[in-house]
Amino acid sequence: MTSAPTAAPSTDRVEFRVRPSDYRHWRLTFDGPVATLSMDVDEHAGLVPGYELKLNSYDLGVDIELYDATQRLRFEHPEVRAVVLTSGKEKVFCAGANIRMLACSPHAWKVNFCKFTNETRLAIEDATLNSGQTWLAALNGTASGGGYELALACEHIMLVDDRSSAVSLPELPLLGVLPGTGGLTRLVDKRRVRRDLADYFTTRQEGLGGQRAVDWRLVDEVVPRTRWHETVAERAAEYAGRSPRTAGAAGIALTPLTKARSGDGISYRHVRSRVDRARRCVEITVSGPDGEAPASMAAAHRQGADFWTLAVTRELDDLILDLRTNEPELGTWILRTEGDPRRVLGYDALLLDNRDDWLANEILLYLGRTLKRLEVTSRSLMALIEPGSCFAGSLFELALAADRSFQLLGVFENDPREQPAVVMVGGMNLGPLPMGNGLTRLRTRFLDDDAALTAVRAEAGQPLDARDAHRLGLVTFTPDDIDWAEEVRIAVEERASFSPDALTGLEANYRFAGPETIETKIFGRLSVWQNWIFNRPNASGPDGALGRFGTGQSPEFDRKRV
Amino acid sequence: MTSAPTAAPSTDRVEFRVRPSDYRHWRLTFDGPVATLSMDVDEHAGLVPGYELKLNSYDLGVDIELYDATQRLRFEHPEVRAVVLTSGKEKVFCAGANIRMLACSPHAWKVNFCKFTNETRLAIEDATLNSGQTWLAALNGTASGGGYELALACEHIMLVDDRSSAVSLPELPLLGVLPGTGGLTRLVDKRRVRRDLADYFTTRQEGLGGQRAVDWRLVDEVVPRTRWHETVAERAAEYAGRSPRTAGAAGIALTPLTKARSGDGISYRHVRSRVDRARRCVEITVSGPDGEAPASMAAAHRQGADFWTLAVTRELDDLILDLRTNEPELGTWILRTEGDPRRVLGYDALLLDNRDDWLANEILLYLGRTLKRLEVTSRSLMALIEPGSCFAGSLFELALAADRSFQLLGVFENDPREQPAVVMVGGMNLGPLPMGNGLTRLRTRFLDDDAALTAVRAEAGQPLDARDAHRLGLVTFTPDDIDWAEEVRIAVEERASFSPDALTGLEANYRFAGPETIETKIFGRLSVWQNWIFNRPNASGPDGALGRFGTGQSPEFDRKRV
Repeated sequence: MTSAPTAAPSTDRVEFRVRPSDYRHWRLTFDGPVATLSMDVDEHAGLVPGYELKLNSYDLGVDIELYDATQRLRFEHPEVRAVVLTSGKEKVFCAGANIRMLACSPHAWKVNFCKFTNETRLAIEDATLNSGQTWLAALNGTASGGGYELALACEHIMLVDDRSSAVSLPELPLLGVLPGTGGLTRLVDKRRVRRDLADYFTTRQEGLGGQRAVDWRLVDEVVPRTRWHETVAERAAEYAGRSPRTAGAAGIALTPLTKARSGDGISYRHVRSRVDRARRCVEITVSGPDGEAPASMAAAHRQGADFWTLAVTRELDDLILDLRTNEPELGTWILRTEGDPRRVLGYDALLLDNRDDWLANEILLYLGRTLKRLEVTSRSLMALIEPGSCFAGSLFELALAADRSFQLLGVFENDPREQPAVVMVGGMNLGPLPMGNGLTRLRTRFLDDDAALTAVRAEAGQPLDARDAHRLGLVTFTPDDIDWAEEVRIAVEERASFSPDALTGLEANYRFAGPETIETKIFGRLSVWQNWIFNRPNASGPDGALGRFGTGQSPEFDRKRV
Repeated sequence: MTSAPTAAPSTDRVEFRVRPSDYRHWRLTFDGPVATLSMDVDEHAGLVPGYELKLNSYDLGVDIELYDATQRLRFEHPEVRAVVLTSGKEKVFCAGANIRMLACSPHAWKVNFCKFTNETRLAIEDATLNSGQTWLAALNGTASGGGYELALACEHIMLVDDRSSAVSLPELPLLGVLPGTGGLTRLVDKRRVRRDLADYFTTRQEGLGGQRAVDWRLVDEVVPRTRWHETVAERAAEYAGRSPRTAGAAGIALTPLTKARSGDGISYRHVRSRVDRARRCVEITVSGPDGEAPASMAAAHRQGADFWTLAVTRELDDLILDLRTNEPELGTWILRTEGDPRRVLGYDALLLDNRDDWLANEILLYLGRTLKRLEVTSRSLMALIEPGSCFAGSLFELALAADRSFQLLGVFENDPREQPAVVMVGGMNLGPLPMGNGLTRLRTRFLDDDAALTAVRAEAGQPLDARDAHRLGLVTFTPDDIDWAEEVRIAVEERASFSPDALTGLEANYRFAGPETIETKIFGRLSVWQNWIFNRPNASGPDGALGRFGTGQSPEFDRKRV
């Protein structure tokens, strides 16, 4: 299907935890409210053997560091109001995803890599839009393919005007594929480049620079090299000046996550997973807070990365990335929670009551991004709501994100946890954690059925047992003690018997009903076109464009349009 | 890639022209304002050898007749206000697309087949929404897969309640693919079936019937067999009673199209095509009216199918379907026009001034559907605007639908047509012909750039030469006499050199910027997932679900999630 990998990704597990002191590819420097993130890829430090990362081209390893930088800028550097993204190399900003890496990677690796890259770019846009940390792309040389797509995620794009530097999306003419990380969508839907001009631009291998790039809205300004540094500094200061961030904030340290991996699964402090290879599933259990929420955000600041909501979000984020990349055959994720629902609502309330506090705002945004990461993950999600579980407020979002949920009606026979399972709706379910489609998970569930949503709102803060939750449309099935084990077993085993590809398509279509946004278009439309194209012999076959790239031979295409 | 076709579609060209007297699979009967369209597939009359159309399963031939019926109902039967879609067989409504046919068809055939099927279903919804001809699905037996998807295109779904009849989407559990013609999207976005219930339903091979099908919104009512016929008649009469159609209208005959096919191309009265196999393109030339528009709609009614706008739309519709199906290697369609632009605006004005006339309304809607058919066609579209061309109003939509347009600046040297090429914006460009995304082509071109749109509106009715059209953003490039031939040649030859798959993806992403609708979701998201899945070994490989279907062997899946 895809060409045989000549250098398959290492069988070692990919690890997403990284620290700035370990960065191989990026330099992060600070000058008051302006941070500069310089891409300076070490061409010999690819994540997998078999390719060299020339011309600031990137692979997953480069992107893992970029993601870490975006997170640290937000939590450790609240003083930063503008981020200048530039290149540490002469004459080239970034050549995009490494083509040799793409050509020698299996299909699933490419798809997963593009997904993570897309998520980081959306996180950059989230920082600009919601966090007062505006990203500027300072293209001090040519930005091609994924390099230009990275720039497109920034609010303002500056290109050096030197008669050779350009922006380009050469994937189609050069490789027979599409730009894989949002380029097409951002050109027409974000930057409002006219579609016929976008069409021409995307077929022009050498791209465009100079004034025409500005006229066509491909970049925001071109700057002569003689005035480059001062103009970039000026523009960064301008954007920093407009930021609504309050001054004088001190960051919190994103201390290393404690993570234990065993044959059975992965454990963190509040999140643990248990693998069941026979049923091709993994059970993920999220624990509620150990104690009551701190009395104030000041106390939360002192807790820093130990503050429960932040800690649990970081753990969940890392677990999603880890399982997604390292465990592709575990097709079903079973979501469980445990703990005291009222404590979760307490933590939620502290954050919701203090959205003007930068840390509260960051934690909410991060939780929102992490839930969205869960939803674009190509795994079946099932929530099990049992006695002792803790599906309240922010944790209830996990059940709402699931493809199906089961809530036990009554209690298990002879179970010491005598209270029936409940779910609780809270403020977190009613606005601050929108899905990629811009709607809350509850609104997406009910869409224009306002009566259903009103009925749910009226029960906010109340413990809802299986009968209530079912009546309100909040859970899918409510088997009793007698049926529970059998129903859940059948659901899990049946899921494992289906075509993994068909399930991925099914879930991607059902999870995002309602309106579309740039984000849902990128994941639901553009990426799928890319996947289809990548999977076709014209791209990945032995005579296809990716395989023939760099060989001096032209690709041989099946000329039939599909 | 796909399994080797065991019965490739015949090398004979597929013909889309058909008459009710030749129907093999449908019966159309009339009872005052209610028409009944009964599906009664002749299992031995498949379009291609190699499969039997059992249980009212369908292939492209069945769908060609269905499309013809939808068209005749609208033009030949304006007295019809409600259409009952039912089955002529006992106990089965329709088993969906024939699985043997799918398993033995090449990928491109399947994709093209699903596209046409989707278009007809959208045409059924268009009749209900915009034409006062409401379609009801009377499911007198089980409707599975594409059979249920056909029902989902109807406004009201009735299911017989006999403890065995059900609606189902068994594609995923049975075949390892998705329902291919809008089912998933219509469930959640049109019928507002809750996503977790939709998830369960779509994995349940046997589907659901009875009251639960109503409770979950899968159907609108279930009716005991004893009261079936009277209830269907009652419901049809109700919907017919609500139709805003004026009484007493007499239809016009959709007389057979005159169509001449030669090695060079296809010619109709107003539309002709010329094939250029070396450059893998086809030139399509549309001629404007021979004379002035009739003075009134009464005169237009007398002209019937000869009325220019209707005639040219029918010809274009047939040509698009023909080329799309029979000429997959002609990857670029060059759109030309010729004639008097003012005459086109005259015909346009007659229709726009008489939208309350049923025929004017039908012609406008049909033109709209045909332009949308052009836009979901996987071919590059280039418009050439030269002296003597006729890109005005309705015909200017062709240029706006194109991926790129070229307008000659000035005149060709020594050309007898001394007037420079002009385009003219008219009422047809400003509302009545929305794209699939619900916006006009002009609005999609400029999106939120209101100033650009206002500037264009201000020039409506004016001849716009290349300089004006370029200034207004209406055309892509405006080479002069010296550059014209070279620029056009390079554009066409370059297009022919690119990967056809990548171009298809590129065009599908750029053509529909802005908001999404059920229609754009079906073509831009759902269908692409389906294409990707169809192309994967888990579906189409030798051990995949489609290949193994009916062999008694279970498919063998690659269990990795992508």
